[in-house]
Amino acid sequence: MTTVSIIGNGNMGTAIGGIVAAGGNTVEYVGRDAAEPVSGDIVVLAVPYPAVAEIIEARREQLAGKVVVDITNPLNFETFDSLVVPADGSAAAVIAAALPESRVLKAFNTNFAATLAAKTVGGAQPTTVLVAGDDELAKRALLDVVRAGGVNAVDAGALSRARELESVGFLQLTLAVQEKVGWNAGVALVA
Amino acid sequence: MTTVSIIGNGNMGTAIGGIVAAGGNTVEYVGRDAAEPVSGDIVVLAVPYPAVAEIIEARREQLAGKVVVDITNPLNFETFDSLVVPADGSAAAVIAAALPESRVLKAFNTNFAATLAAKTVGGAQPTTVLVAGDDELAKRALLDVVRAGGVNAVDAGALSRARELESVGFLQLTLAVQEKVGWNAGVALVA
Repeated sequence: MTTVSIIGNGNMGTAIGGIVAAGGNTVEYVGRDAAEPVSGDIVVLAVPYPAVAEIIEARREQLAGKVVVDITNPLNFETFDSLVVPADGSAAAVIAAALPESRVLKAFNTNFAATLAAKTVGGAQPTTVLVAGDDELAKRALLDVVRAGGVNAVDAGALSRARELESVGFLQLTLAVQEKVGWNAGVALVA
Repeated sequence: MTTVSIIGNGNMGTAIGGIVAAGGNTVEYVGRDAAEPVSGDIVVLAVPYPAVAEIIEARREQLAGKVVVDITNPLNFETFDSLVVPADGSAAAVIAAALPESRVLKAFNTNFAATLAAKTVGGAQPTTVLVAGDDELAKRALLDVVRAGGVNAVDAGALSRARELESVGFLQLTLAVQEKVGWNAGVALVA
């Protein structure tokens, strides 16, 4: 059994925790206060990108050796026209550089919370979680947790693919705010 | 009635031409030889990215004033690990810069040819064509042609969104070559 610690209790953290629990694994919700320890082997940073830096700074030693899951879409929310990370990089790459002792994965950023909770995209297609990362065992552990919870999960490749995953998340958000896709729908992956 | 000229007669050009004709519009297939004129108001460059530069060079004057549709996924096909265009740009941006008198759109690059021909993604979801561009009338003309042909089409925003569309195409190709999605399936957009 895997213990997954989730920092952040918004829609995304709650939905991801639901999947973890549905698979018979243990979920631990942790507040943003760094005095509260994390016990999971997998730690999901279920907070907006601007909140990540402070959590990393405060918890760097706690997170050493752990699998750290970045779910963010690092949009410039003022312009809604670009990302705030380097064009040739990603939020995940920034986080991995800041946490050299952790095994960083990118996941869940292409899924709206409602599609994780319902396990379908718009009621029409099964939800698929795309996972990227350089540590194969870390990636397999997360893929297993998601699949155990009844949600499709696909290995999207190396952590460098986070750049593309963040582009998908960005595009999907722009379509949702323009009401071209619903917040319970969006991008589905058909095998 | 709109005339659409398609340069390139591979799977993509054939599938796009099928949609044009299905909508009661006129399709004209044009070889790569620049001596053959293009008469369409919309010209689809249905060739791989490396072939685009020569076509542009040879047909720059012919393409002036026309709507030019870039469908390419500019992958580095040796490494399959990056794009060959600037990280903060896109093939569409490169093409638009090379064709300042044309109205350049990005479209069809997130659709595998078989999903355009079948009008479904893996038989499961209707195919959706994402279209980006800065000229609203040009974009509307292409959206109308695609919808008339019985395929969903969504305005994905300004031409700068081509960067994200090319990331989607890149990611989808990496998943297909690894057999994680079929060439008749892939990314579907659920409204």
